[in-house]
Amino acid sequence: MLNNAASGSPAGQEAAAGEGVFAQLSGLMNPKSVAVVGASNRSDGWSGMAVPVLRRLGFAGRIFPVNPKYEELNDLKCYPSVSAIPEPVDAVLIFVPQKLLPDIIEDCGRKGVRGAVILASGFSETGEEGRAMEETLREIANRNRIAICGPNCLGLANLDSGFMGLTAATFPEDMSAGRTALISQSGQLLMVLLARAHDQGVRMRYLVSTGNELNVEAADYASWALDDPEIASVCMNLEGLRTPSRFLALAKKAQAVEKPLIVLKLGRSKRAARTALAHTGKMAGAFRTYDAVFRQNNVVSVDDPMELAEAAALFEKCPAPRGERIAVVTFSGGWSGVMADQCEALDLPMADFTEKTVECLRPLLDFTPPVNPLDLSGNVNNHPERWGQSLKIALDDENTDILVVFIHQVRESWRGRLIGPVLELSETADKPIIVVYDGGKVVEAGYEQLARDGRLPIYRGSQQMLKALKRFIDYHKRAKRPADDGAGPQIPADAGARVDALLAVGGRTMAEDVAKQALLAYGLPMVGETLVESEADALRAAEAIGYPVVLKGLADGMEHKSDAGLVHLKLGDGEAVRRAYADLAEKLAGHTLNGRPAPCLVQKMVGGGVEVILGMQNDPDFGPMILVGVGGVMTELLNDVALRRAPLSRTDVAEMIDETRLGRLLAGYRGSPAADRAALEDAVLRLSALSVAHADAIESIDINPVLVLPEGEGCVAVDALIVKPEDEA
Amino acid sequence: MLNNAASGSPAGQEAAAGEGVFAQLSGLMNPKSVAVVGASNRSDGWSGMAVPVLRRLGFAGRIFPVNPKYEELNDLKCYPSVSAIPEPVDAVLIFVPQKLLPDIIEDCGRKGVRGAVILASGFSETGEEGRAMEETLREIANRNRIAICGPNCLGLANLDSGFMGLTAATFPEDMSAGRTALISQSGQLLMVLLARAHDQGVRMRYLVSTGNELNVEAADYASWALDDPEIASVCMNLEGLRTPSRFLALAKKAQAVEKPLIVLKLGRSKRAARTALAHTGKMAGAFRTYDAVFRQNNVVSVDDPMELAEAAALFEKCPAPRGERIAVVTFSGGWSGVMADQCEALDLPMADFTEKTVECLRPLLDFTPPVNPLDLSGNVNNHPERWGQSLKIALDDENTDILVVFIHQVRESWRGRLIGPVLELSETADKPIIVVYDGGKVVEAGYEQLARDGRLPIYRGSQQMLKALKRFIDYHKRAKRPADDGAGPQIPADAGARVDALLAVGGRTMAEDVAKQALLAYGLPMVGETLVESEADALRAAEAIGYPVVLKGLADGMEHKSDAGLVHLKLGDGEAVRRAYADLAEKLAGHTLNGRPAPCLVQKMVGGGVEVILGMQNDPDFGPMILVGVGGVMTELLNDVALRRAPLSRTDVAEMIDETRLGRLLAGYRGSPAADRAALEDAVLRLSALSVAHADAIESIDINPVLVLPEGEGCVAVDALIVKPEDEA
Repeated sequence: MLNNAASGSPAGQEAAAGEGVFAQLSGLMNPKSVAVVGASNRSDGWSGMAVPVLRRLGFAGRIFPVNPKYEELNDLKCYPSVSAIPEPVDAVLIFVPQKLLPDIIEDCGRKGVRGAVILASGFSETGEEGRAMEETLREIANRNRIAICGPNCLGLANLDSGFMGLTAATFPEDMSAGRTALISQSGQLLMVLLARAHDQGVRMRYLVSTGNELNVEAADYASWALDDPEIASVCMNLEGLRTPSRFLALAKKAQAVEKPLIVLKLGRSKRAARTALAHTGKMAGAFRTYDAVFRQNNVVSVDDPMELAEAAALFEKCPAPRGERIAVVTFSGGWSGVMADQCEALDLPMADFTEKTVECLRPLLDFTPPVNPLDLSGNVNNHPERWGQSLKIALDDENTDILVVFIHQVRESWRGRLIGPVLELSETADKPIIVVYDGGKVVEAGYEQLARDGRLPIYRGSQQMLKALKRFIDYHKRAKRPADDGAGPQIPADAGARVDALLAVGGRTMAEDVAKQALLAYGLPMVGETLVESEADALRAAEAIGYPVVLKGLADGMEHKSDAGLVHLKLGDGEAVRRAYADLAEKLAGHTLNGRPAPCLVQKMVGGGVEVILGMQNDPDFGPMILVGVGGVMTELLNDVALRRAPLSRTDVAEMIDETRLGRLLAGYRGSPAADRAALEDAVLRLSALSVAHADAIESIDINPVLVLPEGEGCVAVDALIVKPEDEA
Repeated sequence: MLNNAASGSPAGQEAAAGEGVFAQLSGLMNPKSVAVVGASNRSDGWSGMAVPVLRRLGFAGRIFPVNPKYEELNDLKCYPSVSAIPEPVDAVLIFVPQKLLPDIIEDCGRKGVRGAVILASGFSETGEEGRAMEETLREIANRNRIAICGPNCLGLANLDSGFMGLTAATFPEDMSAGRTALISQSGQLLMVLLARAHDQGVRMRYLVSTGNELNVEAADYASWALDDPEIASVCMNLEGLRTPSRFLALAKKAQAVEKPLIVLKLGRSKRAARTALAHTGKMAGAFRTYDAVFRQNNVVSVDDPMELAEAAALFEKCPAPRGERIAVVTFSGGWSGVMADQCEALDLPMADFTEKTVECLRPLLDFTPPVNPLDLSGNVNNHPERWGQSLKIALDDENTDILVVFIHQVRESWRGRLIGPVLELSETADKPIIVVYDGGKVVEAGYEQLARDGRLPIYRGSQQMLKALKRFIDYHKRAKRPADDGAGPQIPADAGARVDALLAVGGRTMAEDVAKQALLAYGLPMVGETLVESEADALRAAEAIGYPVVLKGLADGMEHKSDAGLVHLKLGDGEAVRRAYADLAEKLAGHTLNGRPAPCLVQKMVGGGVEVILGMQNDPDFGPMILVGVGGVMTELLNDVALRRAPLSRTDVAEMIDETRLGRLLAGYRGSPAADRAALEDAVLRLSALSVAHADAIESIDINPVLVLPEGEGCVAVDALIVKPEDEA
């Protein structure tokens, strides 16, 4: 169950360091004074550039170079050690070889330093020896309550205060502070993203390359950044999580403060997971689990590094939209068509202009129609004033929730009169206005003007813009979901104890009848059945249950009953039961179940209803994950399932059903009566409760099919499998 | 059935102009002499800029300004009319108002001009009056055998010869000729694409804004361009097709000469279709039909204008790949992970390095593993020579079919030593090498260097690159498909006559038994059945067919038999047939079928087998389109169907089955026996033959379900519906 070898902490439980270190984060992220350990007069390396760069970015705090070789550096007194500095020191940037680090961190501890940036590599990412060295360093840092950024990282920066502890080959020209935080487990992705984002006018406030996360994790930086009222969103590149519970807490906090987390999860593929492990020693975890956790917590999940900045642009520069209807103003029929096609492909609705808007637009157009997307065509040249007029009319339409302005192929002399009215409109607008500026390097000056201005989100192509917009709209839609009342179904008081007792006996895979008793204890409806050990018992049970019945043989090691020929369906009378029993008796001869002779199960033959699969997988990172999907024969062919982390809310369950084709099937597909969806929802919540209560003792649960009967008739599980963890069996 | 109101030509049949005009295309696209009608001395408009631009781009032919107002323009003698020019004139660029055009084109005809570019708008795109004017102009042009580009367009250019008849607000700086043709029904898309493509190092050779396509269509320009041995691919922006048959001929030609057509089909959505109509008067057609035609003819279909250039880059600069296994070399673990994840998401396989490669790479790496994707990490800085060495080793690996090189975050001083080895390697490589160059404006100089060099395809982001690469690989895979032997199933000689006779009677919807007779005539296997008009007949038929049977009532206006309660399934004996007959007799009382009393149908009750839906829809553009998909109850829920244009080849049918879940279902899903796929394929080919032979008289065919029985047992259609066209009924 442990997968975080590097931190040695139980998954999902403990933080790598205590609250003590988290309290020091302000010292690391927003220090009042900085020591540069290993500072030098070299002009070709960061040991020499660190102090000048701090000054150039306007860091207003005290700066202390530390190096026994110098008396003075960059016109500042240079100290032989951190503890020799006569004033308080919040943060330390460390440019020294690996082997000196333990002594330096101890020295920082004596001085009361709050945070340190360790760039050096050669730790857990290199193998056993490096791992031991990292452990030593962690012990020293935690004992001294020093928050460490790194090791094996590019450092961090606070562009607001000018505290620049980030080392890289290149930086964008404009390093002014914006409203986005970027926390990245990959240093190179951080730097490329920083450059691309600033080019696009999305400016960062906090930048962290987290490296090996000695005692501060990606989620900790993100959580700290959320507290800054200036922060509009937090972007993260995640390869894996040291402490999944910290990420979950972060996601809850982000929802509470109504700021989005925008996350690129790397290591989705097997190949990439191997890369991530080699890269920073982190296990990547299964992406479908992350994806489920992201959905549940309204985390904005993206598929490409650039999409982080593309999404952040909207959250930084736009008000929350009132709805999702998009109006598009352009001066090309071709681009209008592209926008309409791409909106439809992404299921983004376009606004239908009101009659009033149509009447206002008509006199501004020659032969293009007054519809959305609006094509001003040559008017943009022949009647320049119509551009601003049309933009305002389209934005003011009550059906317009979001305005997209398309500018392309702009002659130098038109630039001002195209950009001006858009910026002017944005001054008073209470709806998102988005600009797509396209046409290659020949129109780059206009793109750059808008990016520098920074008021509006700007994109080079429509596709990237619409993908980001889709995420922006979905986030706000989900943020508005009504809160759940939190009331789950009534679970019988003795359920926990009964299941504990059932789990205590038998092998790793529970016998079907025992598994069903466990589920029944939590109130999951099971098909009526009786365990029998003789033909006479079987006949009695069949009479009591009522024909037709099913007869199944149960034996250890023969869990795949159908394949072993141990299932007889649709037995209509006593004679059929007798024949089936004889067949099973022959096949089960010599087999046992939990030590006793292998018995049979007589079950009500249930027909009809919508077939559903329910399941639970105990994830090493996130614990019990609940699965709901299309069940029965179609399960594998469709692979149409939804996943969420337990405990589930009623909203979660409703979403899971609607995420799959079950929503349509339950509503009454092709003339079938509507099925008892409420009963299914109740069953899923009961499964969630059981899974959470017995998370340590159950590895997986598989219930397939659950038959959801017509409304008012409930649902009933026909088959169930419970598997215990290997070390518990 | 006509949807091309503008051209007035029957769909899929006639060209807007004859072969006569096509023969003149060389005069329009590659003229030896050009007259500029309406040339002027204005410096702010194209009438004045046309001549200087022709000279600046190095047009080597004769140039004749034409304008009665001038004696001389740009140091050239200016003529009062085209016919006054004493030398031959191939092409004419026309910068005069619309109303002068008829006279000018007549004058061009007298002079023997071969092609003319008409930029003026105000024709069919504006309404009835414009449409009439366009008709007049078309008549004059066709009579005089003049190929017309436009009207309502931005013109065209041949960058190889410097014949520049393109008018737009901006042009990229580098207008040197490359190996790609770009034919666009939208002028603005053409210009933005030109700029973006040249920025990326993909240079155009021919550029055409086709406008209203008076007598030369997008497909004609494309076909002409394919004949140029220098052309590597032809990109097209299509809103709609005037003459679908010309596009089909083009697609076949492209396959024959082994050059890809890369197409962006606009007007996929209803909203965009409306836009396209307003824009150039073209109907957009149903995208699913286009998509099917594209697949069938190995047309590379893209979803965004920029993707045209992104795909063209690979066809212009790369040899055909031997396979699809990708090797990636980078110097970042983060980017390695992104590449691995995105390859998997697109189902693009990555190469597994051979043992030999692993041994060669190991000494070049510090602690990163010698695997694909390869992360050189800091070596790229500390041991620069290892960059080129690693690239060569990865490329030479026998498992590598395609090499992707990732460059990012490049310090100015590293640029040469990172780019140099890649370019050097490309000199001798016989495999595709692709560069992703990322990191924003701070590394733009490197990107620009590679784009200018032009030897390698270069991309800014991995996602766009991989999407293009996927298309490139798919194209080459499909191009290598073995040719079909062309042998279809044996169709009975009298099939055509029999179906003609059956189509001649009855209303618009054929009665089920008649529809089945028609399908049976072409050898489509139908479930055994007999039409009966009395209880005695029904009982006799049931005995002959063998129990269990199905009894259905047939009546005009009651085609949805199940909904009307006219279907009795699983009748096991005579008593059941009697009861069912009595019920139907009551329901059918007073109803008729084709004038006679409504009869019943006794049918073999067939069970088991894989349920398939077969169908045909007669498309106004492309004629009979055949549909194959998952049938039965799941049809609507899954909507899992494949579509192709008839006549189908065996390869088409096999692809259609494998494109849907049918491939897996037929192979024997969840322990079912493998189904008789060959019988289904045969049935689809028979449906195709019937559909083509009777295309004029059938609007649609719906056969659902066809039951595909276990191997060797064939397939059998249970229900069939044939609808005739409205005007044929």
